[in-house]
Amino acid sequence: MIELYDLAGSNPDHRFSPYCWRVRMALAHKGLEPHTTPWRFHEKDKLPGAPANRTVPVLVDRGAVVADSTAIAFHLEQIYYNGPSLFGGPGGDTHARFILAWADTVLIAGLFPIVGPDVLAHLHPADHAYFRASREKRLGMSLEAARARRDDLLPAFRASLAPLRHTLSRQEFLGGDEPSYADYAVFGGFQWARLISPVELLAEDDPVRAWRDTMLDLFDGLARKAVTGAVADC
Amino acid sequence: MIELYDLAGSNPDHRFSPYCWRVRMALAHKGLEPHTTPWRFHEKDKLPGAPANRTVPVLVDRGAVVADSTAIAFHLEQIYYNGPSLFGGPGGDTHARFILAWADTVLIAGLFPIVGPDVLAHLHPADHAYFRASREKRLGMSLEAARARRDDLLPAFRASLAPLRHTLSRQEFLGGDEPSYADYAVFGGFQWARLISPVELLAEDDPVRAWRDTMLDLFDGLARKAVTGAVADC
Repeated sequence: MIELYDLAGSNPDHRFSPYCWRVRMALAHKGLEPHTTPWRFHEKDKLPGAPANRTVPVLVDRGAVVADSTAIAFHLEQIYYNGPSLFGGPGGDTHARFILAWADTVLIAGLFPIVGPDVLAHLHPADHAYFRASREKRLGMSLEAARARRDDLLPAFRASLAPLRHTLSRQEFLGGDEPSYADYAVFGGFQWARLISPVELLAEDDPVRAWRDTMLDLFDGLARKAVTGAVADC
Repeated sequence: MIELYDLAGSNPDHRFSPYCWRVRMALAHKGLEPHTTPWRFHEKDKLPGAPANRTVPVLVDRGAVVADSTAIAFHLEQIYYNGPSLFGGPGGDTHARFILAWADTVLIAGLFPIVGPDVLAHLHPADHAYFRASREKRLGMSLEAARARRDDLLPAFRASLAPLRHTLSRQEFLGGDEPSYADYAVFGGFQWARLISPVELLAEDDPVRAWRDTMLDLFDGLARKAVTGAVADC
């Protein structure tokens, strides 16, 4: 059995971590269905492999404990080599590394000040103090101040998607004709935003929207069916 | 015989086009030595395949005329499949497309306002009017005004290299253990800057420098031996 420790909000079924979504999609790509364990920020000592592992995702696969979404992806590719490849074969993984680096340093970094402040309202009360302190330090301002200026950041964020837009204008997925882990790594950011924030990241005529829709439909609508913060708040 | 139409300055041996350098490196990767024909901006009707082809690089390979650096790379990969792969195999080319898109929309686009204004001084006199008019339109200001503010643009340019820096901190080349066309596509931008501008793009402690040095050394120093604008100006 595969166990995935997955960030959860106050609603334990509200799972929004962009890094955990990468893994959820990668597991589905390999035809694997994990058992997921909801985890909150204040449960740092409840992760397997602790004290080294202090963040999710953490995967426990037949006794092996693997932390970090990228390490998990390469673990799955290696162990489940008979399943569909996450990287499309030789040359795929090395080049995909650049896309993963872009997803972290440009996409998630650009999303963080826009949708990150919306996370607080969805968190378990015991996570509030930690989240506010750590995120306000990173933002250099209060969550409320960050939320107030987020619309000003949208144009630069949208412009930063140019390499994604450009690539998806000539192939269906970053992986080519089929989605690869690079698609999941990038999609994780959009899914995070979708599950915690009312902000529409993409302009109406942005061709990235079609790709996002396709990603939501993959694996019988796995990502589309996810519990959203809005539902959880009702 | 392979013929490459290659942008040249007033010194016909001064070849600085970032797109042509991608092709020069790709040809060397395949073990091919082209005959190069210097071409200037005002010679738009002198390109084979004209009037469709109005920019370089243009490659003529045993009768086939191929324009556009990316199209040329895929042509070489297909025709010279027995040589070392430019993309590392299936999965490599599709993911590399994102890196090419990044090289165009982030790297070259970011370099253009910093080093582009320095091109003018190196051009054949018959190219000056065209270059000034077209580039000042793109810049939204005179070449001289652009040059005056270029130092202000360096911090954002250096920050924009984060995905490159991040990737090269964990593998030697974008292609992994060996350089791929993705490396050449990105390197073309740095080689362009090096051959036309005194601006040092990278901070002294930037790990991207080691990669750039390695790229300059490839193929018996092909790129390092290139005639620079400084030499041509003496």
